[in-house]
Amino acid sequence: MEKSMIERYARFTVRMGANVQKGQTVLISCPIDVAWFGRMCAAEAYLAGARDVVVHYNDQQLTRIRMEGADIEALKEVKPWVLASYMDYYEGDGSMVRIAISAEDPEIYKGVDLDRVDITLRARSIALKPWIELAMANRVQWCIVSVPAVPWAQKVFAGETADAAVEKLWEAIFTATRMDMPDPEAAWRDHAVNARRRIDRLNGMDIDALHLRGENGTDLKVGLADDYLFEGVESVSTGGVSFLANVPSEEVFTAPHKDRVEGIVKSSMPYVYNGNLIEGITARFEKGRAVEVSAEKGGALLDQMMAADEGARHLGEIALVPASSPIRKSGILFYNTLFDENAACHIAFGSGYPTTIKNGSDMPREELDAKGLNESVIHEDIMVGTPEMDIDALLKGGEAVPVFRKGEWVL
Amino acid sequence: MEKSMIERYARFTVRMGANVQKGQTVLISCPIDVAWFGRMCAAEAYLAGARDVVVHYNDQQLTRIRMEGADIEALKEVKPWVLASYMDYYEGDGSMVRIAISAEDPEIYKGVDLDRVDITLRARSIALKPWIELAMANRVQWCIVSVPAVPWAQKVFAGETADAAVEKLWEAIFTATRMDMPDPEAAWRDHAVNARRRIDRLNGMDIDALHLRGENGTDLKVGLADDYLFEGVESVSTGGVSFLANVPSEEVFTAPHKDRVEGIVKSSMPYVYNGNLIEGITARFEKGRAVEVSAEKGGALLDQMMAADEGARHLGEIALVPASSPIRKSGILFYNTLFDENAACHIAFGSGYPTTIKNGSDMPREELDAKGLNESVIHEDIMVGTPEMDIDALLKGGEAVPVFRKGEWVL
Repeated sequence: MEKSMIERYARFTVRMGANVQKGQTVLISCPIDVAWFGRMCAAEAYLAGARDVVVHYNDQQLTRIRMEGADIEALKEVKPWVLASYMDYYEGDGSMVRIAISAEDPEIYKGVDLDRVDITLRARSIALKPWIELAMANRVQWCIVSVPAVPWAQKVFAGETADAAVEKLWEAIFTATRMDMPDPEAAWRDHAVNARRRIDRLNGMDIDALHLRGENGTDLKVGLADDYLFEGVESVSTGGVSFLANVPSEEVFTAPHKDRVEGIVKSSMPYVYNGNLIEGITARFEKGRAVEVSAEKGGALLDQMMAADEGARHLGEIALVPASSPIRKSGILFYNTLFDENAACHIAFGSGYPTTIKNGSDMPREELDAKGLNESVIHEDIMVGTPEMDIDALLKGGEAVPVFRKGEWVL
Repeated sequence: MEKSMIERYARFTVRMGANVQKGQTVLISCPIDVAWFGRMCAAEAYLAGARDVVVHYNDQQLTRIRMEGADIEALKEVKPWVLASYMDYYEGDGSMVRIAISAEDPEIYKGVDLDRVDITLRARSIALKPWIELAMANRVQWCIVSVPAVPWAQKVFAGETADAAVEKLWEAIFTATRMDMPDPEAAWRDHAVNARRRIDRLNGMDIDALHLRGENGTDLKVGLADDYLFEGVESVSTGGVSFLANVPSEEVFTAPHKDRVEGIVKSSMPYVYNGNLIEGITARFEKGRAVEVSAEKGGALLDQMMAADEGARHLGEIALVPASSPIRKSGILFYNTLFDENAACHIAFGSGYPTTIKNGSDMPREELDAKGLNESVIHEDIMVGTPEMDIDALLKGGEAVPVFRKGEWVL
């Protein structure tokens, strides 16, 4: 890919994605394989006026070596400095920006003892919860973007050489993120306005539940949390700065009520969990809880996911994505949630976003619980949308309003 | 370089260099450009029984971007997590091992505002002092080794292609570290025994000062600290485990008395400080203090070094290295202290090693001060030895015992 295109992408990430403001501290999480892109974002953030930029490199190959070699008790421990390496920079709302660069090998931990993988990654999730919660409540601006790394690119474009696979993945990413348009910033502004129109409409209806029906057997009623808010494409931090939490982003999403989900749902795409694949998930819900779950492939992994904590069996998000989304139309399976979740309607097992409850960012946990917002150390988006899916909004008055027909918005 | 040779080197680093014991935690500092070697050492440490291995990656290119872009006040700050990322693992003597991989570009910060470089690096040195002191007192086993990175290799072998320069630097490193011998472990054991013989001899003499005279104008009397101990090649941790602090190591060294150095000394090799070169240093000492310093090149840098703190103008180490050392004989200027300090006798400005005072590791700071051990945030080894250098040990009784003649041991 041309350097100028990649530089434009880094600039977009920093300026419109994270929307770095003068005097802010920027924390970048970056896979070691794409350190050059982390540096590019750092340089751009300084140009945007950042006070300081801190890059935390992560190395999945090293993590794999540790999972296989370390004492099991050591895997359970995450020392205090790990959380402090984020929180030491937080000086209140508006002080910070989080940029996460995602380039994971989808099957990096394949073949490693599942318990060791789970223990290691869960310990980290638990340790970093306070930091993740800051992002989930939009107390910091945040933006997740992807750049190709070889193992990932070769999974997406199997059989290609490293160089060819990376080039193809760049093209796919640039299409998915509108970077190939003449004016990406303007395209994103239009996109955000369109999403906002639907969001306002949905927030104005008095919805009791969304009813999803698919030709694959999905028949799920997702009750919404009290005072739910739909959100999508563009977010606003508690410090008052707008940002794009995900690039790309084709979804409009809100909070299910953790205790009011009923029925059966089937996954429509493979899912990467703990560096391994899960395929063909079926889940049956009663009173919000997934009482039966199974998978055609990766069942043991799915069981681990469900065992993370009690909240792992409840839903934290329901997201609406039309079958005509550019990511689905590309026909590419990315094996990366940042992209795949924008190819289909999805539900997330695990924690919900306080921002999807009216005034939720300012609510103590007990109040969010009372509204029905789910809590967990996990947040795993499972794609359930199909090109034939119909969705109705069941209003509190009893009326059913068509929202999706045959996979497309009809609102 | 053949993979099997490099694996042997990683094994040597972990097993004989750091001498990792079952149940210990190993902390590896690794430049991002040679992450693959960090991983190799991590895997080897687990095979040796390490409980856990933590790799801290550093990225000089990123640091340079930060020096140029960050707010000056941000450069002065080092958040608490940075020190904690080391100290969180220290659970008393014998619990930990430090492996540092050195592959710096000698002129990485060339062209950056000198004050910004100095502020950034000094803030880090001050913040990490408690951790560095653990190593200097041998409370942890520690081992510094090098592997080639392209910018460094091309500085050492100017005009070569990246691949050729790296290959030549591997060969030079393997010669310098005895890795090219049939049995490197045996060669190091012999080498340690030889050094020990000289160390015992020097420790048995009642030395008041070492008198260095070179054909280049050096004429320096280095008074030794009270209860000085010579040390070299092999060290023993306070936890009772032997290790090689430097690989390679050709020096026998001890502690000067911080207030008893007199005369003039000239540097005999270029020195890398703060990612820049200093050449042609002259220093004149009175009562232990460098009262006049100058350099033919990099004078402003040298002034910064001297301004680090009061201890920066006093000596913390005097080290004896024969002109016949394999590193000098190679004729290669490495632009890396780990190698260059083993090519010539040297003095270090800045802090001294508590281990070079009898029972020093257990002494509180005031007692070490009283013995004459210097303290500073810096420790910078300046090469002063020449092939014509004579060194006498001036005994307390008044006798002068020849130690070096024409650059070689005569003891």
